[in-house]
Amino acid sequence: MGSSYGTIFRIHTFGESHGPAIGVIIDGCPAGLNIDESYIQKELDRRRPGQSKITTQRKEADQARILSGIFDGKSTGTPIAIVIDNEDQRSKDYSHLENAFRPSHADYTYAEKYGIRDHRGGGRSSARETAARVAAGAIAKLLLQQSGIRVQAYVSQVGEIKAPAYNTMDLAKTEENIVRCPDQATAAQMIALIDQVRLDRDTIGGMITGVVKGTPVGLGEPVFDKLHAELGKAMLSINAVKGFEYGSGFGGIHLKGSQHNDAYVNEGGKIRTKTNYSGGIQGGISNGEDIYFNVAFKPVATIMQDQETVDNEGQPVTLAGKGRHDPCVVPRAVPIVEAMAALVIADFLLRSRVSKI
Amino acid sequence: MGSSYGTIFRIHTFGESHGPAIGVIIDGCPAGLNIDESYIQKELDRRRPGQSKITTQRKEADQARILSGIFDGKSTGTPIAIVIDNEDQRSKDYSHLENAFRPSHADYTYAEKYGIRDHRGGGRSSARETAARVAAGAIAKLLLQQSGIRVQAYVSQVGEIKAPAYNTMDLAKTEENIVRCPDQATAAQMIALIDQVRLDRDTIGGMITGVVKGTPVGLGEPVFDKLHAELGKAMLSINAVKGFEYGSGFGGIHLKGSQHNDAYVNEGGKIRTKTNYSGGIQGGISNGEDIYFNVAFKPVATIMQDQETVDNEGQPVTLAGKGRHDPCVVPRAVPIVEAMAALVIADFLLRSRVSKI
Amino acid sequence: MGSSYGTIFRIHTFGESHGPAIGVIIDGCPAGLNIDESYIQKELDRRRPGQSKITTQRKEADQARILSGIFDGKSTGTPIAIVIDNEDQRSKDYSHLENAFRPSHADYTYAEKYGIRDHRGGGRSSARETAARVAAGAIAKLLLQQSGIRVQAYVSQVGEIKAPAYNTMDLAKTEENIVRCPDQATAAQMIALIDQVRLDRDTIGGMITGVVKGTPVGLGEPVFDKLHAELGKAMLSINAVKGFEYGSGFGGIHLKGSQHNDAYVNEGGKIRTKTNYSGGIQGGISNGEDIYFNVAFKPVATIMQDQETVDNEGQPVTLAGKGRHDPCVVPRAVPIVEAMAALVIADFLLRSRVSKI
Amino acid sequence: MGSSYGTIFRIHTFGESHGPAIGVIIDGCPAGLNIDESYIQKELDRRRPGQSKITTQRKEADQARILSGIFDGKSTGTPIAIVIDNEDQRSKDYSHLENAFRPSHADYTYAEKYGIRDHRGGGRSSARETAARVAAGAIAKLLLQQSGIRVQAYVSQVGEIKAPAYNTMDLAKTEENIVRCPDQATAAQMIALIDQVRLDRDTIGGMITGVVKGTPVGLGEPVFDKLHAELGKAMLSINAVKGFEYGSGFGGIHLKGSQHNDAYVNEGGKIRTKTNYSGGIQGGISNGEDIYFNVAFKPVATIMQDQETVDNEGQPVTLAGKGRHDPCVVPRAVPIVEAMAALVIADFLLRSRVSKI
Repeated sequence: MGSSYGTIFRIHTFGESHGPAIGVIIDGCPAGLNIDESYIQKELDRRRPGQSKITTQRKEADQARILSGIFDGKSTGTPIAIVIDNEDQRSKDYSHLENAFRPSHADYTYAEKYGIRDHRGGGRSSARETAARVAAGAIAKLLLQQSGIRVQAYVSQVGEIKAPAYNTMDLAKTEENIVRCPDQATAAQMIALIDQVRLDRDTIGGMITGVVKGTPVGLGEPVFDKLHAELGKAMLSINAVKGFEYGSGFGGIHLKGSQHNDAYVNEGGKIRTKTNYSGGIQGGISNGEDIYFNVAFKPVATIMQDQETVDNEGQPVTLAGKGRHDPCVVPRAVPIVEAMAALVIADFLLRSRVSKI
Repeated sequence: MGSSYGTIFRIHTFGESHGPAIGVIIDGCPAGLNIDESYIQKELDRRRPGQSKITTQRKEADQARILSGIFDGKSTGTPIAIVIDNEDQRSKDYSHLENAFRPSHADYTYAEKYGIRDHRGGGRSSARETAARVAAGAIAKLLLQQSGIRVQAYVSQVGEIKAPAYNTMDLAKTEENIVRCPDQATAAQMIALIDQVRLDRDTIGGMITGVVKGTPVGLGEPVFDKLHAELGKAMLSINAVKGFEYGSGFGGIHLKGSQHNDAYVNEGGKIRTKTNYSGGIQGGISNGEDIYFNVAFKPVATIMQDQETVDNEGQPVTLAGKGRHDPCVVPRAVPIVEAMAALVIADFLLRSRVSKI
Repeated sequence: MGSSYGTIFRIHTFGESHGPAIGVIIDGCPAGLNIDESYIQKELDRRRPGQSKITTQRKEADQARILSGIFDGKSTGTPIAIVIDNEDQRSKDYSHLENAFRPSHADYTYAEKYGIRDHRGGGRSSARETAARVAAGAIAKLLLQQSGIRVQAYVSQVGEIKAPAYNTMDLAKTEENIVRCPDQATAAQMIALIDQVRLDRDTIGGMITGVVKGTPVGLGEPVFDKLHAELGKAMLSINAVKGFEYGSGFGGIHLKGSQHNDAYVNEGGKIRTKTNYSGGIQGGISNGEDIYFNVAFKPVATIMQDQETVDNEGQPVTLAGKGRHDPCVVPRAVPIVEAMAALVIADFLLRSRVSKI
Repeated sequence: MGSSYGTIFRIHTFGESHGPAIGVIIDGCPAGLNIDESYIQKELDRRRPGQSKITTQRKEADQARILSGIFDGKSTGTPIAIVIDNEDQRSKDYSHLENAFRPSHADYTYAEKYGIRDHRGGGRSSARETAARVAAGAIAKLLLQQSGIRVQAYVSQVGEIKAPAYNTMDLAKTEENIVRCPDQATAAQMIALIDQVRLDRDTIGGMITGVVKGTPVGLGEPVFDKLHAELGKAMLSINAVKGFEYGSGFGGIHLKGSQHNDAYVNEGGKIRTKTNYSGGIQGGISNGEDIYFNVAFKPVATIMQDQETVDNEGQPVTLAGKGRHDPCVVPRAVPIVEAMAALVIADFLLRSRVSKI
């Protein structure tokens, strides 16, 4: 009921931020895929807390243990279970929250929905859950690499500071700075802004752009399971995401059809489009051009300031800002966006095997 | 494979624009719901082509026939099948398209994905398919009305012309003009713009805002099936949609946590939030406040102008602009947005029945 | 909620026995399959009431109309909708049943489950619903024929009269008599027995054996979706079925492992088994040998005799035996068993395309 | 792809017999259920190897560790993950099997399906996988107990030795002997037979009968997801099962409708049936009477005798019988049958919450 994703390449996640462990089962990974376990760890390390001065200083090793589905370094076609133990839990950090509803967190809605709530660190609603997605996404990426498909994301905006268009930058440089923006000058500004926000004991919103290159023509299903509809759902399911657009996106509102249409041309025997307002997807199905999309993140709800709220009996209480949290979520969310995109594309890649006789 | 939507309240659609009929099966509607068949027709009439001077002049009666699932005016708990026959098909209007790929349509991607293509009017990729969604959405709306939940949508932008914020207008006035914007002055400007674009033989993009009022606390599921993630998928699955945002949306990028957080207050014994940047959803679960969201639509791809493209052998061809098409999709898309929102909320309403012991 | 079957090759059925129509959507049929519409009709004719003296004398043309998914004689990869109008409904035949619960029918359970009941001819619980399965199964059979897989069924028992083992008969002779048993001497006895039972205004149980030949090695999924588990579910979902067994079945209880094990042998370079107690399935996955299984049907519940029962207020009533019904269900159930088997195998055939890299 | 079961109360299992661990995620358990962890362990102990002289002497503690979904002794509505570490693996016991296909095991079919095979103890196809089902089934049983529903199973046949009818015995006495047959005299004969078979280095088949008492009217869904169809699938998915029947089962073939019909009677204001050939299910929906069914198990394929077979290159090899295996599977399969039945009923119990307005 909400913890599964995908149709053929399908994942099931579990775990609370302060329980013994979180994890994921990947069901539907084809047999015979070479699984480099160190690659899974590398991806987790990109998401790990405490990796730089602009992220939370909480320490979690986030060590992935594979329990099944791999034999002699290859996937066997059976479910791949990965468990990540919780370590630096400090549950007592949360004892003051036992009865208070943190503003713009899921405390109140979980309490009402379930009548019971694991208040320690948000429980299931904690962004810690996304580590399981990153582990599963690493397997999806390995599958996509075999087909020549590359999924990349980067920070394209923090507050008012924006990066240039994706196709004017060298995306290979994304990991060269701690904010994960491939344009180094913009990155420096973003880092300075986040650092200032942190000193102000506040948080700030941001945007991540995702790009998928090398997709064959034909991924995506008609009507409800359009490629961009699934991408949108996948992105919107990530904690703190408030919006999704692909191709021309909200900018397309302002355009005329005569400007927006992507003319087909024959480029050395290959059918291409002159422009790419479509964002690589037409009628919900990939056309072989770059798929690109933007994901909007709100400012992190946990701030280091006193906030007025109510407790579970509706009484007003003042919540002190404490703990170890990210001043801006986007640098650590880059691998999460990539993971979710990879899961979507991998699923459609397998689904496309049954389109034709 | 793509033509089903929902988990418990679940629909399956079928049909091509120029086949004998389109239709839908609604499975999972609880027994005992009063079904007013004329209401289904009224909703279809709101989407019907030819309803005003700013929509396509194609004529389709879009008459819904119910084949099952209703007895003595009530749902029986078994699948409700609704068929809408295709009438004004004029397949010959499309004979010039048999081999050409229309720019920014799904012709090329369908041809590659399936190796076979029903070229008449876009076949399955035609927006005609959305009539089935509206019929199903009408049943969902009847279910929601029983629980005091109202789903409303309106045109909030056409080109550069924007309506005021949703909570400053009387949404009951949406149907008082042909563009479906509740602010009459803005509506007049929008209509004038669309009319001009039509005379220019061009098309233009727009935006629809959806609002859901009266939702109980607790709708939506954790992790992947967050309420806004499903809403986003549902909206992005509508033809011509390029973006989705809810609550603060892309605007949240610019805000600080201290500005964006929605403080809880006790309002006469009821827990409410002071502001509503969250858009009525926290941690993917409704908190009882208004749910509101924006949906971006690109300009319609079919324009009344010559366009350069290629045929299915990659040869350049000039496509003449002809036929009967909408200069702007948003006026007729309002009932579609409402239908998809109603389907999402109805499904979560039923899913929420199993959250607790 | 119950009216869908399959994972990739997936069907959704609808319709009550005395509503306007019944039908089915087939979603997930690969594009490019040649669809011979007359074949669908031929299969429906095998199930049709009134086809011989030992079946119900009710008349239904059961004419299939295809509404979508086929273009130029080929599947397009989009949903195939098939509708069969109800004709000879005689709803008044059922007015005496409006408040009475027929013994061993679904009247009471539907009334309790849904709080509302379409009493005319059993409504959704009527075996008329299986016509939709046969139509869908015909498409599945066409898909299997392309891969050299043949699905056949026949009547193997009526009351005490049993046919010889499947591999000692020529199954091609199944349609040569009205009871559908390939052994003509046994068939004659079965027909005589059913005829006698009919004269006695009673009904009798029977058994159908299904055989699938030409299956490649590798169909079926581990753990829950084992090939025989899905076959079993498919068969048990047919009206009046009380049991399912495959391979050695219940007879395997009596055997020792040393007798029951199917030794592997190399037969001209192909791995085969010497015996086939496994029924062509090992660990839930096909091994290339014949798949064979038995399906037990109870005697039809509607008998031409007075029966004591209660009405919906719990008051005792006597139910008069009237109407037009089958004295034995198995002759007409042969195409239904074949259809369900074909749907299962077709689905696994497509699922097997994603097992390996 | 095969490792998930259920619609609302849904489980996902993972793990190979000789990997680090096996386990299960239970998604969809309502919040607020009291979870007695020792009960889960008690159920696992009933399935554990090495529990008596007539089972395998392999030792596994089968200790369940709960990783998520439970807080303060109650379910929280989020996924419950349970892991059982593998201990006594002795992978070297299987080195002689690396290239040989064991008769009537899944070695050959897995190798062909996936192109890669974890040969140690059958890998994913090992019956060890059923421990995960038992753990999940324990949670389902706790949910059912809250609603007054009891699921019980017992050994009803071993070889030719049969127990009396279920409603003539005291099922509470099932656990009083090591073969799990409530009739002590029959049990003694069964134990003697299994012991003899073990001395003969052979194995033997058997039957388990399941009984569900206290089910409300209305569980089960029409058409494909009939209660007995899901029960059948659930049972057939258990290793070594060859057949399933409920109510009159295969015996119903021999009966007339006038004998088989279950007359309704008013028993002190409650609608009951005089007889129960229907096995508590009519039209796929429970009618409140006892649900009872039989499950046929083949003799275990691993025997302590030399067997002729082929290796993965098709060359003949002789397989020595060694290792530690069950001479008859049914005593240890009793809790597995109960677990699967509980999972089916729990799922339908939750599904029935959305049948009516």
